[in-house]
Amino acid sequence: MISASFESWMREQLAAVEASLERWVPADAPAGLGAAMRYGVLDGGKRLRPLLVMAACEAVAGDANAALRAAVAVELIHAYSLVHDDMPCMDNDVLRRGKPTVHVQFGEASAMLAGDAMQALAFEVLTPDASDELAMPALLQARLCGLLARAAGHDGMAGGQAIDLASTGKPLDEVRLRDMHRRKTGALLQASVLMGAASGPCDPAVWAALSDYGTALGLAFQVVDDILDVTQASDKLGKTAGKDLDANKPTYVTVLGLDEARRQAHTLHETALAALQRSGLAQADRLQLLADLVVDRDC
Amino acid sequence: MISASFESWMREQLAAVEASLERWVPADAPAGLGAAMRYGVLDGGKRLRPLLVMAACEAVAGDANAALRAAVAVELIHAYSLVHDDMPCMDNDVLRRGKPTVHVQFGEASAMLAGDAMQALAFEVLTPDASDELAMPALLQARLCGLLARAAGHDGMAGGQAIDLASTGKPLDEVRLRDMHRRKTGALLQASVLMGAASGPCDPAVWAALSDYGTALGLAFQVVDDILDVTQASDKLGKTAGKDLDANKPTYVTVLGLDEARRQAHTLHETALAALQRSGLAQADRLQLLADLVVDRDC
Repeated sequence: MISASFESWMREQLAAVEASLERWVPADAPAGLGAAMRYGVLDGGKRLRPLLVMAACEAVAGDANAALRAAVAVELIHAYSLVHDDMPCMDNDVLRRGKPTVHVQFGEASAMLAGDAMQALAFEVLTPDASDELAMPALLQARLCGLLARAAGHDGMAGGQAIDLASTGKPLDEVRLRDMHRRKTGALLQASVLMGAASGPCDPAVWAALSDYGTALGLAFQVVDDILDVTQASDKLGKTAGKDLDANKPTYVTVLGLDEARRQAHTLHETALAALQRSGLAQADRLQLLADLVVDRDC
Repeated sequence: MISASFESWMREQLAAVEASLERWVPADAPAGLGAAMRYGVLDGGKRLRPLLVMAACEAVAGDANAALRAAVAVELIHAYSLVHDDMPCMDNDVLRRGKPTVHVQFGEASAMLAGDAMQALAFEVLTPDASDELAMPALLQARLCGLLARAAGHDGMAGGQAIDLASTGKPLDEVRLRDMHRRKTGALLQASVLMGAASGPCDPAVWAALSDYGTALGLAFQVVDDILDVTQASDKLGKTAGKDLDANKPTYVTVLGLDEARRQAHTLHETALAALQRSGLAQADRLQLLADLVVDRDC
Protein backbone atom coordinates (compact mmCIF):
# COMPACT_ATOMS: atom_id res chain seq x y z
CA MET A 1 0.00 0.00 0.00
CA ILE A 2 1.60 3.26 -1.15
CA SER A 3 0.81 6.34 0.92
CA ALA A 4 -0.78 9.35 -0.77
CA SER A 5 2.12 11.60 0.13
CA PHE A 6 4.71 9.19 -1.33
CA GLU A 7 2.62 8.82 -4.44
CA SER A 8 2.37 12.55 -4.84
CA TRP A 9 6.13 12.92 -4.30
CA MET A 10 6.76 10.29 -6.97
CA ARG A 11 4.38 11.99 -9.40
CA GLU A 12 6.15 15.30 -8.89
CA GLN A 13 9.63 13.81 -9.42
CA LEU A 14 8.54 11.85 -12.46
CA ALA A 15 7.01 14.95 -14.03
CA ALA A 16 10.29 16.82 -13.57
CA VAL A 17 12.34 13.92 -14.99
CA GLU A 18 9.97 13.52 -17.94
CA ALA A 19 10.13 17.24 -18.72
CA SER A 20 13.93 17.17 -18.55
CA LEU A 21 14.19 14.15 -20.81
CA GLU A 22 11.79 15.89 -23.19
CA ARG A 23 14.08 18.92 -23.18
CA TRP A 24 17.40 17.13 -23.48
CA VAL A 25 16.72 14.32 -25.93
CA PRO A 26 16.83 16.21 -29.22
CA ALA A 27 13.89 15.94 -31.56
CA ASP A 28 16.01 17.47 -34.32
CA ALA A 29 18.93 15.03 -34.30
CA PRO A 30 19.48 14.20 -37.97
CA ALA A 31 18.10 11.49 -40.21
CA GLY A 32 15.59 10.05 -37.75
CA LEU A 33 18.17 9.60 -35.00
CA GLY A 34 16.30 11.98 -32.68
CA ALA A 35 13.02 10.15 -33.27
CA ALA A 36 14.60 6.78 -32.43
CA MET A 37 16.29 8.19 -29.31
CA ARG A 38 13.04 9.76 -28.10
CA TYR A 39 11.05 6.61 -28.82
CA GLY A 40 13.58 4.63 -26.78
CA VAL A 41 13.49 6.80 -23.69
CA LEU A 42 10.41 9.03 -23.49
CA ASP A 43 7.04 8.09 -22.11
CA GLY A 44 7.74 4.71 -20.64
CA GLY A 45 9.37 2.75 -17.88
CA LYS A 46 9.10 2.84 -14.13
CA ARG A 47 11.87 5.44 -13.81
CA LEU A 48 13.13 3.68 -10.69
CA ARG A 49 16.69 4.93 -11.23
CA PRO A 50 15.70 8.62 -11.49
CA LEU A 51 13.56 8.22 -8.37
CA LEU A 52 16.53 6.77 -6.48
CA VAL A 53 18.69 9.71 -7.55
CA MET A 54 16.10 12.25 -6.41
CA ALA A 55 15.41 10.44 -3.12
CA ALA A 56 19.13 10.22 -2.31
CA CYS A 57 19.54 13.91 -3.15
CA GLU A 58 16.71 14.71 -0.77
CA ALA A 59 18.26 12.53 1.94
CA VAL A 60 21.51 14.54 1.87
CA ALA A 61 19.73 17.87 1.21
CA GLY A 62 21.59 18.10 -2.11
CA ASP A 63 21.27 20.32 -5.17
CA ALA A 64 18.00 19.28 -6.84
CA ASN A 65 18.95 20.71 -10.25
CA ALA A 66 22.17 18.73 -10.31
CA ALA A 67 20.30 15.62 -9.19
CA LEU A 68 17.79 16.09 -11.98
CA ARG A 69 20.63 16.05 -14.51
CA ALA A 70 22.00 12.92 -12.85
CA ALA A 71 18.54 11.34 -12.95
CA VAL A 72 18.23 12.03 -16.68
CA ALA A 73 21.73 10.73 -17.37
CA VAL A 74 21.15 7.48 -15.48
CA GLU A 75 17.85 6.89 -17.26
CA LEU A 76 19.53 7.51 -20.64
CA ILE A 77 22.10 4.84 -19.85
CA HIS A 78 19.39 2.43 -18.72
CA ALA A 79 17.25 3.12 -21.79
CA TYR A 80 20.18 2.73 -24.20
CA SER A 81 21.02 -0.63 -22.63
CA LEU A 82 17.46 -1.83 -23.25
CA VAL A 83 17.56 -0.67 -26.88
CA HIS A 84 20.76 -2.62 -27.50
CA ASP A 85 19.71 -5.58 -25.36
CA ASP A 86 16.50 -6.03 -27.38
CA MET A 87 18.34 -6.27 -30.71
CA PRO A 88 18.33 -9.52 -32.71
CA CYS A 89 21.98 -10.25 -31.97
CA MET A 90 21.25 -10.03 -28.23
CA ASP A 91 17.85 -11.00 -26.74
CA ASN A 92 15.91 -10.49 -29.97
CA ASP A 93 12.90 -9.05 -28.20
CA VAL A 94 10.07 -7.39 -30.11
CA LEU A 95 8.03 -6.02 -27.21
CA ARG A 96 9.11 -3.53 -24.55
CA ARG A 97 6.86 -1.51 -22.28
CA GLY A 98 3.94 -2.74 -24.37
CA LYS A 99 5.34 -1.24 -27.60
CA PRO A 100 7.40 -2.62 -30.49
CA THR A 101 11.09 -2.37 -29.60
CA VAL A 102 13.25 0.32 -31.21
CA HIS A 103 14.86 -1.97 -33.79
CA VAL A 104 11.42 -3.25 -34.83
CA GLN A 105 10.15 0.29 -35.23
CA PHE A 106 13.23 1.97 -36.77
CA GLY A 107 15.52 -0.81 -38.01
CA GLU A 108 18.62 -2.34 -36.46
CA ALA A 109 21.14 0.24 -37.61
CA SER A 110 19.07 3.11 -36.22
CA ALA A 111 18.57 1.25 -32.95
CA MET A 112 22.29 0.72 -32.57
CA LEU A 113 23.09 4.36 -33.35
CA ALA A 114 20.29 5.64 -31.11
CA GLY A 115 21.71 3.60 -28.22
CA ASP A 116 25.22 4.87 -28.93
CA ALA A 117 24.01 8.48 -29.05
CA MET A 118 21.99 8.02 -25.84
CA GLN A 119 25.11 6.90 -24.00
CA ALA A 120 27.00 9.98 -25.22
CA LEU A 121 24.04 12.21 -24.36
CA ALA A 122 24.15 11.03 -20.76
CA PHE A 123 27.63 12.54 -20.42
CA GLU A 124 26.57 15.69 -22.30
CA VAL A 125 23.78 16.22 -19.77
CA LEU A 126 26.27 15.85 -16.91
CA THR A 127 28.68 18.45 -18.32
CA PRO A 128 26.77 21.71 -18.84
CA ASP A 129 29.11 24.50 -19.85
CA ALA A 130 29.27 27.78 -17.99
CA SER A 131 26.69 29.39 -20.29
CA ASP A 132 24.06 26.88 -19.21
CA GLU A 133 21.45 28.39 -16.91
CA LEU A 134 21.73 25.36 -14.64
CA ALA A 135 25.51 25.07 -14.39
CA MET A 136 27.07 22.66 -11.89
CA PRO A 137 30.44 22.88 -10.12
CA ALA A 138 33.15 21.13 -12.13
CA LEU A 139 33.94 18.86 -9.19
CA LEU A 140 30.39 17.54 -9.20
CA GLN A 141 30.37 17.13 -13.00
CA ALA A 142 33.56 15.09 -12.85
CA ARG A 143 32.32 12.92 -9.98
CA LEU A 144 28.99 12.20 -11.67
CA CYS A 145 30.69 11.31 -14.96
CA GLY A 146 33.08 9.00 -13.14
CA LEU A 147 30.34 7.21 -11.19
CA LEU A 148 28.16 6.78 -14.26
CA ALA A 149 30.95 5.61 -16.57
CA ARG A 150 32.10 2.96 -14.11
CA ALA A 151 28.54 1.70 -13.56
CA ALA A 152 27.90 1.51 -17.31
CA GLY A 153 31.16 -0.05 -18.44
CA HIS A 154 33.03 -3.33 -18.33
CA ASP A 155 33.02 -3.57 -14.54
CA GLY A 156 29.32 -2.69 -14.47
CA MET A 157 26.42 -3.06 -16.85
CA ALA A 158 28.26 -3.99 -20.06
CA GLY A 159 30.32 -6.58 -18.18
CA GLY A 160 27.16 -8.05 -16.69
CA GLN A 161 25.57 -8.29 -20.12
CA ALA A 162 28.63 -10.14 -21.38
CA ILE A 163 28.37 -12.69 -18.57
CA ASP A 164 24.63 -13.00 -19.21
CA LEU A 165 25.29 -13.67 -22.89
CA ALA A 166 27.97 -16.25 -22.18
CA SER A 167 25.97 -18.07 -19.51
CA THR A 168 22.94 -18.98 -21.61
CA GLY A 169 22.32 -22.69 -21.25
CA LYS A 170 25.11 -23.10 -18.72
CA PRO A 171 24.80 -23.85 -15.04
CA LEU A 172 25.89 -20.89 -12.90
CA ASP A 173 26.44 -21.15 -9.16
CA GLU A 174 24.95 -18.58 -6.83
CA VAL A 175 28.23 -16.66 -6.44
CA ARG A 176 28.64 -16.16 -10.17
CA LEU A 177 24.95 -15.42 -10.66
CA ARG A 178 25.25 -12.73 -8.00
CA ASP A 179 28.36 -11.29 -9.67
CA MET A 180 26.54 -11.16 -13.01
CA HIS A 181 23.60 -9.31 -11.50
CA ARG A 182 25.74 -7.01 -9.38
CA ARG A 183 27.21 -5.79 -12.65
CA LYS A 184 24.25 -6.06 -14.98
CA THR A 185 21.58 -4.26 -12.96
CA GLY A 186 23.08 -3.65 -9.52
CA ALA A 187 25.87 -1.30 -10.55
CA LEU A 188 23.57 1.25 -12.20
CA LEU A 189 20.99 1.11 -9.39
CA GLN A 190 23.75 1.65 -6.85
CA ALA A 191 25.21 4.47 -8.96
CA SER A 192 21.77 6.12 -9.00
CA VAL A 193 21.82 6.30 -5.21
CA LEU A 194 25.42 7.52 -5.09
CA MET A 195 24.95 10.14 -7.82
CA GLY A 196 22.05 11.56 -5.82
CA ALA A 197 24.21 11.49 -2.70
CA ALA A 198 27.03 13.27 -4.55
CA SER A 199 24.73 16.24 -5.17
CA GLY A 200 25.01 17.27 -1.51
CA PRO A 201 27.32 17.02 1.48
CA CYS A 202 27.92 13.39 2.39
CA ASP A 203 30.66 12.18 4.75
CA PRO A 204 32.44 8.85 4.12
CA ALA A 205 30.38 6.87 6.65
CA VAL A 206 27.09 8.03 5.14
CA TRP A 207 28.48 7.37 1.66
CA ALA A 208 29.41 3.81 2.68
CA ALA A 209 25.97 3.19 4.17
CA LEU A 210 24.23 4.49 1.03
CA SER A 211 26.55 2.38 -1.07
CA ASP A 212 25.49 -0.72 0.92
CA TYR A 213 21.85 0.29 0.56
CA GLY A 214 22.35 0.55 -3.21
CA THR A 215 24.06 -2.84 -3.44
CA ALA A 216 21.30 -4.62 -1.51
CA LEU A 217 18.53 -2.81 -3.37
CA GLY A 218 20.15 -3.59 -6.73
CA LEU A 219 20.31 -7.31 -5.98
CA ALA A 220 16.80 -7.33 -4.50
CA PHE A 221 15.52 -5.72 -7.69
CA GLN A 222 17.01 -8.48 -9.81
CA VAL A 223 15.80 -11.33 -7.57
CA VAL A 224 12.27 -9.88 -7.74
CA ASP A 225 12.62 -9.47 -11.52
CA ASP A 226 13.50 -13.13 -11.83
CA ILE A 227 10.51 -14.07 -9.65
CA LEU A 228 8.12 -11.92 -11.69
CA ASP A 229 9.47 -13.40 -14.93
CA VAL A 230 7.97 -16.77 -13.93
CA THR A 231 4.91 -15.63 -11.92
CA GLN A 232 3.44 -12.83 -14.05
CA ALA A 233 1.88 -12.61 -17.51
CA SER A 234 3.37 -10.57 -20.37
CA ASP A 235 0.55 -8.01 -20.45
CA LYS A 236 1.16 -7.17 -16.81
CA LEU A 237 4.94 -6.85 -17.27
CA GLY A 238 4.71 -4.94 -20.57
CA LYS A 239 7.40 -7.26 -21.87
CA THR A 240 7.66 -10.92 -22.80
CA ALA A 241 7.21 -13.00 -19.63
CA GLY A 242 9.09 -16.24 -19.13
CA LYS A 243 11.73 -15.18 -21.61
CA ASP A 244 14.65 -16.01 -19.36
CA LEU A 245 13.28 -19.50 -18.89
CA ASP A 246 12.66 -19.87 -22.62
CA ALA A 247 16.16 -18.63 -23.38
CA ASN A 248 17.56 -21.14 -20.89
CA LYS A 249 19.22 -18.39 -18.89
CA PRO A 250 20.20 -18.94 -15.28
CA THR A 251 18.08 -16.84 -12.88
CA TYR A 252 17.66 -16.71 -9.12
CA VAL A 253 14.57 -18.89 -9.55
CA THR A 254 16.28 -21.56 -11.64
CA VAL A 255 19.38 -21.59 -9.43
CA LEU A 256 17.70 -21.28 -6.01
CA GLY A 257 14.06 -22.23 -6.56
CA LEU A 258 11.09 -19.90 -6.10
CA ASP A 259 10.84 -20.15 -2.31
CA GLU A 260 14.52 -19.49 -1.67
CA ALA A 261 14.48 -16.62 -4.20
CA ARG A 262 11.57 -15.06 -2.25
CA ARG A 263 13.44 -15.55 1.00
CA GLN A 264 16.52 -13.82 -0.44
CA ALA A 265 14.45 -10.90 -1.71
CA HIS A 266 13.16 -10.48 1.84
CA THR A 267 16.65 -10.64 3.35
CA LEU A 268 18.08 -8.15 0.86
CA HIS A 269 15.20 -5.80 1.64
CA GLU A 270 16.10 -5.96 5.34
CA THR A 271 19.77 -5.38 4.53
CA ALA A 272 18.89 -2.29 2.54
CA LEU A 273 16.76 -0.88 5.36
CA ALA A 274 19.46 -1.62 7.95
CA ALA A 275 22.01 0.28 5.84
CA LEU A 276 19.67 3.27 5.69
CA GLN A 277 19.29 3.11 9.46
CA ARG A 278 23.08 3.06 9.77
CA SER A 279 23.41 6.15 7.56
CA GLY A 280 21.77 8.18 10.32
CA LEU A 281 20.13 10.37 7.64
CA ALA A 282 16.96 12.00 8.95
CA GLN A 283 15.40 12.44 5.50
CA ALA A 284 15.81 8.86 4.27
CA ASP A 285 12.14 7.84 4.30
CA ARG A 286 11.74 8.14 0.52
CA LEU A 287 14.72 5.82 0.03
CA GLN A 288 13.04 3.40 2.44
CA LEU A 289 9.74 3.55 0.58
CA LEU A 290 11.54 2.94 -2.72
CA ALA A 291 13.15 -0.18 -1.25
CA ASP A 292 9.68 -1.35 -0.18
CA LEU A 293 8.39 -0.67 -3.68
CA VAL A 294 11.19 -2.64 -5.34
CA VAL A 295 10.40 -5.72 -3.29
CA ASP A 296 6.60 -5.46 -3.21
CA ARG A 297 6.01 -4.58 -6.87
CA ASP A 298 4.04 -6.91 -9.12
CA CYS A 299 5.41 -5.66 -12.46
CA MET B 1 58.70 13.35 -47.00
CA ILE B 2 58.55 13.08 -43.23
CA SER B 3 61.52 14.49 -41.32
CA ALA B 4 63.44 12.22 -38.99
CA SER B 5 62.69 14.37 -35.96
CA PHE B 6 58.93 14.35 -36.66
CA GLU B 7 59.02 10.63 -37.19
CA SER B 8 60.84 10.10 -33.92
CA TRP B 9 58.35 12.38 -32.11
CA MET B 10 55.46 10.35 -33.56
CA ARG B 11 57.09 7.07 -32.57
CA GLU B 12 57.53 8.33 -29.02
CA GLN B 13 53.92 9.53 -28.73
CA LEU B 14 52.52 6.36 -30.24
CA ALA B 15 54.52 4.22 -27.84
CA ALA B 16 53.08 6.16 -24.89
CA VAL B 17 49.52 5.94 -26.26
CA GLU B 18 49.90 2.23 -26.96
CA ALA B 19 51.23 1.57 -23.46
CA SER B 20 48.34 3.53 -21.94
CA LEU B 21 45.74 1.70 -23.99
CA GLU B 22 47.40 -1.54 -22.97
CA ARG B 23 47.09 -0.49 -19.34
CA TRP B 24 43.54 0.85 -19.43
CA VAL B 25 41.70 -1.58 -21.66
CA PRO B 26 41.10 -4.44 -19.24
CA ALA B 27 42.26 -7.91 -20.21
CA ASP B 28 40.19 -9.34 -17.36
CA ALA B 29 36.78 -7.89 -18.27
CA PRO B 30 34.39 -10.84 -17.96
CA ALA B 31 33.21 -13.44 -20.45
CA GLY B 32 35.49 -12.44 -23.32
CA LEU B 33 34.47 -8.79 -23.21
CA GLY B 34 38.01 -7.69 -22.44
CA ALA B 35 39.42 -9.74 -25.30
CA ALA B 36 36.95 -8.20 -27.77
CA MET B 37 37.66 -4.68 -26.50
CA ARG B 38 41.41 -5.17 -26.75
CA TYR B 39 41.12 -6.72 -30.22
CA GLY B 40 39.11 -3.69 -31.32
CA VAL B 41 41.53 -1.06 -30.13
CA LEU B 42 45.05 -2.38 -29.52
CA ASP B 43 47.80 -2.76 -32.07
CA GLY B 44 46.26 -1.09 -35.06
CA GLY B 45 45.24 2.14 -36.68
CA LYS B 46 47.10 5.28 -37.56
CA ARG B 47 46.32 6.85 -34.15
CA LEU B 48 45.84 10.22 -35.84
CA ARG B 49 43.49 11.44 -33.11
CA PRO B 50 45.89 10.71 -30.24
CA LEU B 51 48.68 12.41 -32.19
CA LEU B 52 46.50 15.51 -32.61
CA VAL B 53 45.78 15.56 -28.87
CA MET B 54 49.47 15.30 -28.00
CA ALA B 55 50.54 17.88 -30.60
CA ALA B 56 47.91 20.38 -29.37
CA CYS B 57 49.01 19.77 -25.78
CA GLU B 58 52.58 20.51 -26.80
CA ALA B 59 51.49 23.67 -28.65
CA VAL B 60 49.94 25.13 -25.48
CA ALA B 61 52.61 23.66 -23.17
CA GLY B 62 49.89 21.63 -21.47
CA ASP B 63 49.89 18.74 -18.98
CA ALA B 64 51.20 15.74 -20.91
CA ASN B 65 49.71 13.18 -18.50
CA ALA B 66 46.24 14.68 -18.85
CA ALA B 67 46.67 14.82 -22.62
CA LEU B 68 47.66 11.16 -22.67
CA ARG B 69 44.37 10.30 -20.96
CA ALA B 70 42.53 12.45 -23.48
CA ALA B 71 44.39 10.71 -26.32
CA VAL B 72 43.38 7.28 -25.03
CA ALA B 73 39.76 8.38 -24.53
CA VAL B 74 39.46 9.80 -28.05
CA GLU B 75 40.96 6.67 -29.57
CA LEU B 76 38.54 4.49 -27.59
CA ILE B 77 35.60 6.45 -29.01
CA HIS B 78 37.03 6.19 -32.53
CA ALA B 79 37.70 2.47 -32.16
CA TYR B 80 34.24 1.73 -30.74
CA SER B 81 32.65 3.56 -33.68
CA LEU B 82 34.56 1.34 -36.11
CA VAL B 83 33.49 -1.81 -34.26
CA HIS B 84 29.82 -0.81 -34.47
CA ASP B 85 30.13 0.60 -37.99
CA ASP B 86 31.52 -2.68 -39.31
CA MET B 87 28.58 -4.73 -38.02
CA PRO B 88 26.19 -6.44 -40.44
CA CYS B 89 23.34 -4.03 -39.69
CA MET B 90 25.61 -1.10 -40.62
CA ASP B 91 28.38 -1.41 -43.24
CA ASN B 92 28.76 -5.19 -42.91
CA ASP B 93 32.50 -5.09 -43.30
CA VAL B 94 34.65 -8.14 -42.66
CA LEU B 95 38.12 -6.58 -42.95
CA ARG B 96 39.63 -3.77 -40.87
CA ARG B 97 43.28 -2.89 -40.56
CA GLY B 98 44.02 -6.10 -42.43
CA LYS B 99 42.31 -8.28 -39.80
CA PRO B 100 38.83 -9.82 -39.51
CA THR B 101 36.49 -7.27 -37.91
CA VAL B 102 35.43 -7.70 -34.28
CA HIS B 103 32.01 -9.16 -35.06
CA VAL B 104 33.59 -11.70 -37.41
CA GLN B 105 36.09 -12.70 -34.75
CA PHE B 106 33.87 -12.61 -31.62
CA GLY B 107 30.25 -12.57 -32.83
CA GLU B 108 27.79 -9.71 -33.19
CA ALA B 109 26.61 -9.53 -29.60
CA SER B 110 30.16 -9.35 -28.26
CA ALA B 111 31.03 -6.69 -30.83
CA MET B 112 28.09 -4.56 -29.79
CA LEU B 113 28.88 -4.93 -26.08
CA ALA B 114 32.59 -4.30 -26.64
CA GLY B 115 31.75 -1.06 -28.45
CA ASP B 116 29.37 -0.03 -25.68
CA ALA B 117 31.96 -0.76 -23.00
CA MET B 118 34.67 1.10 -24.95
CA GLN B 119 32.52 4.23 -25.02
CA ALA B 120 32.01 4.02 -21.24
CA LEU B 121 35.72 3.32 -20.72
CA ALA B 122 36.60 6.56 -22.52
CA PHE B 123 34.80 8.49 -19.78
CA GLU B 124 36.33 6.29 -17.05
CA VAL B 125 39.79 7.17 -18.32
CA LEU B 126 38.92 10.89 -18.20
CA THR B 127 37.72 10.76 -14.58
CA PRO B 128 40.50 9.36 -12.41
CA ASP B 129 39.61 9.55 -8.76
CA ALA B 130 41.84 11.23 -6.22
CA SER B 131 43.62 7.96 -5.39
CA ASP B 132 44.90 7.67 -8.96
CA GLU B 133 48.62 8.40 -9.22
CA LEU B 134 47.92 10.58 -12.26
CA ALA B 135 44.98 12.61 -10.99
CA MET B 136 43.69 15.59 -12.98
CA PRO B 137 41.96 18.74 -11.75
CA ALA B 138 38.18 18.29 -11.68
CA LEU B 139 37.73 21.28 -13.99
CA LEU B 140 39.83 19.60 -16.66
CA GLN B 141 38.03 16.25 -16.19
CA ALA B 142 34.67 17.95 -16.67
CA ARG B 143 35.81 19.90 -19.74
CA LEU B 144 37.31 16.84 -21.39
CA CYS B 145 34.18 14.77 -20.73
CA GLY B 146 32.01 17.54 -22.17
CA LEU B 147 34.10 17.97 -25.32
CA LEU B 148 34.27 14.23 -25.94
CA ALA B 149 30.57 13.54 -25.29
CA ARG B 150 29.46 16.29 -27.67
CA ALA B 151 31.85 15.09 -30.40
CA ALA B 152 30.65 11.50 -30.02
CA GLY B 153 26.91 12.09 -29.77
CA HIS B 154 23.96 13.11 -31.88
CA ASP B 155 25.47 16.44 -32.91
CA GLY B 156 28.76 14.74 -33.73
CA MET B 157 29.79 11.26 -34.76
CA ALA B 158 26.57 9.33 -34.11
CA GLY B 159 24.55 12.00 -35.92
CA GLY B 160 26.91 11.83 -38.89
CA GLN B 161 26.56 8.06 -39.01
CA ALA B 162 22.79 8.42 -39.05
CA ILE B 163 22.95 10.81 -42.02
CA ASP B 164 25.40 8.47 -43.74
CA LEU B 165 23.03 5.56 -43.24
CA ALA B 166 20.03 7.50 -44.54
CA SER B 167 21.83 8.92 -47.56
CA THR B 168 22.84 5.65 -49.20
CA GLY B 169 21.68 5.71 -52.79
CA LYS B 170 20.41 9.26 -52.53
CA PRO B 171 21.86 12.35 -54.13
CA LEU B 172 23.35 14.72 -51.54
CA ASP B 173 24.38 18.27 -52.36
CA GLU B 174 27.76 19.57 -51.23
CA VAL B 175 26.33 21.45 -48.24
CA ARG B 176 24.67 18.35 -46.79
CA LEU B 177 27.64 16.15 -47.60
CA ARG B 178 29.83 18.60 -45.70
CA ASP B 179 27.43 18.60 -42.74
CA MET B 180 27.47 14.80 -42.67
CA HIS B 181 31.25 14.69 -42.63
CA ARG B 182 31.61 17.56 -40.16
CA ARG B 183 29.69 15.36 -37.75
CA LYS B 184 30.83 11.90 -38.75
CA THR B 185 34.59 12.38 -38.74
CA GLY B 186 35.20 16.12 -38.32
CA ALA B 187 33.74 16.50 -34.84
CA LEU B 188 36.02 13.93 -33.21
CA LEU B 189 39.13 15.15 -35.03
CA GLN B 190 38.35 18.71 -33.95
CA ALA B 191 37.68 17.52 -30.39
CA SER B 192 41.09 15.81 -30.40
CA VAL B 193 42.75 19.16 -31.04
CA LEU B 194 40.62 20.97 -28.47
CA MET B 195 41.08 18.32 -25.79
CA GLY B 196 44.82 18.68 -26.21
CA ALA B 197 44.46 22.45 -26.02
CA ALA B 198 42.34 22.14 -22.85
CA SER B 199 45.28 20.46 -21.09
CA GLY B 200 47.10 23.80 -20.85
CA PRO B 201 46.49 27.54 -20.77
CA CYS B 202 44.66 28.67 -23.89
CA ASP B 203 42.99 32.06 -24.30
CA PRO B 204 39.76 32.40 -26.34
CA ALA B 205 41.47 33.67 -29.50
CA VAL B 206 43.92 30.76 -29.54
CA TRP B 207 41.07 28.37 -28.77
CA ALA B 208 39.07 29.74 -31.72
CA ALA B 209 42.06 29.42 -34.06
CA LEU B 210 42.68 25.82 -32.97
CA SER B 211 38.99 25.09 -33.38
CA ASP B 212 39.17 26.38 -36.99
CA TYR B 213 42.32 24.32 -37.57
CA GLY B 214 40.43 21.25 -36.30
CA THR B 215 37.41 21.89 -38.51
CA ALA B 216 39.50 22.30 -41.66
CA LEU B 217 41.70 19.33 -40.84
CA GLY B 218 38.65 17.16 -40.11
CA LEU B 219 37.08 17.92 -43.46
CA ALA B 220 40.39 17.55 -45.29
CA PHE B 221 40.78 14.13 -43.72
CA GLN B 222 37.41 13.01 -45.06
CA VAL B 223 37.94 14.43 -48.55
CA VAL B 224 41.26 12.58 -48.75
CA ASP B 225 39.58 9.42 -47.41
CA ASP B 226 37.02 9.61 -50.20
CA ILE B 227 39.80 10.12 -52.76
CA LEU B 228 41.80 7.15 -51.45
CA ASP B 229 38.68 4.97 -51.48
CA VAL B 230 38.66 5.17 -55.30
CA THR B 231 42.38 5.46 -56.02
CA GLN B 232 43.95 2.86 -53.72
CA ALA B 233 43.78 -0.92 -53.45
CA SER B 234 42.40 -2.75 -50.38
CA ASP B 235 45.74 -4.19 -49.33
CA LYS B 236 47.23 -0.72 -49.14
CA LEU B 237 44.29 0.68 -47.15
CA GLY B 238 43.97 -2.34 -44.84
CA LYS B 239 40.22 -2.19 -45.45
CA THR B 240 37.91 -2.84 -48.38
CA ALA B 241 38.60 -0.24 -51.08
CA GLY B 242 35.83 1.13 -53.25
CA LYS B 243 33.24 0.19 -50.66
CA ASP B 244 31.56 3.60 -50.64
CA LEU B 245 31.15 3.41 -54.39
CA ASP B 246 29.86 -0.15 -54.17
CA ALA B 247 27.44 0.84 -51.42
CA ASN B 248 26.23 3.72 -53.56
CA LYS B 249 27.12 6.24 -50.86
CA PRO B 250 27.63 9.87 -51.73
CA THR B 251 31.29 10.94 -51.28
CA TYR B 252 33.28 14.04 -52.18
CA VAL B 253 34.43 12.21 -55.28
CA THR B 254 30.95 11.22 -56.47
CA VAL B 255 29.49 14.65 -55.66
CA LEU B 256 32.37 16.85 -56.85
CA GLY B 257 34.48 14.64 -59.11
CA LEU B 258 38.07 13.59 -58.42
CA ASP B 259 39.76 16.81 -59.59
CA GLU B 260 37.52 19.11 -57.58
CA ALA B 261 37.85 16.84 -54.52
CA ARG B 262 41.64 17.13 -54.81
CA ARG B 263 41.36 20.90 -55.15
CA GLN B 264 39.22 21.08 -52.00
CA ALA B 265 41.66 18.94 -50.04
CA HIS B 266 44.37 21.43 -51.00
CA THR B 267 42.24 24.44 -49.99
CA LEU B 268 41.30 22.88 -46.65
CA HIS B 269 44.96 22.16 -45.98
CA GLU B 270 45.77 25.86 -46.56
CA THR B 271 42.86 26.89 -44.30
CA ALA B 272 44.18 24.67 -41.51
CA LEU B 273 47.69 26.11 -41.81
CA ALA B 274 46.35 29.69 -41.88
CA ALA B 275 44.41 29.03 -38.66
CA LEU B 276 47.58 27.74 -37.00
CA GLN B 277 49.40 30.88 -38.13
CA ARG B 278 46.60 32.98 -36.63
CA SER B 279 46.88 31.15 -33.29
CA GLY B 280 50.28 32.75 -32.83
CA LEU B 281 51.45 29.60 -31.01
CA ALA B 282 55.22 29.19 -31.19
CA GLN B 283 55.17 25.41 -30.74
CA ALA B 284 52.61 24.57 -33.43
CA ASP B 285 54.95 22.87 -35.89
CA ARG B 286 53.80 19.35 -34.98
CA LEU B 287 50.18 20.37 -35.65
CA GLN B 288 51.35 21.73 -38.99
CA LEU B 289 53.17 18.52 -39.86
CA LEU B 290 50.09 16.46 -38.91
CA ALA B 291 47.98 18.57 -41.29
CA ASP B 292 50.55 17.89 -44.02
CA LEU B 293 50.39 14.19 -43.22
CA VAL B 294 46.59 14.07 -43.39
CA VAL B 295 46.57 15.55 -46.88
CA ASP B 296 49.66 13.79 -48.29
CA ARG B 297 48.99 10.28 -46.97
CA ASP B 298 48.43 7.41 -49.36
CA CYS B 299 46.57 5.12 -46.94
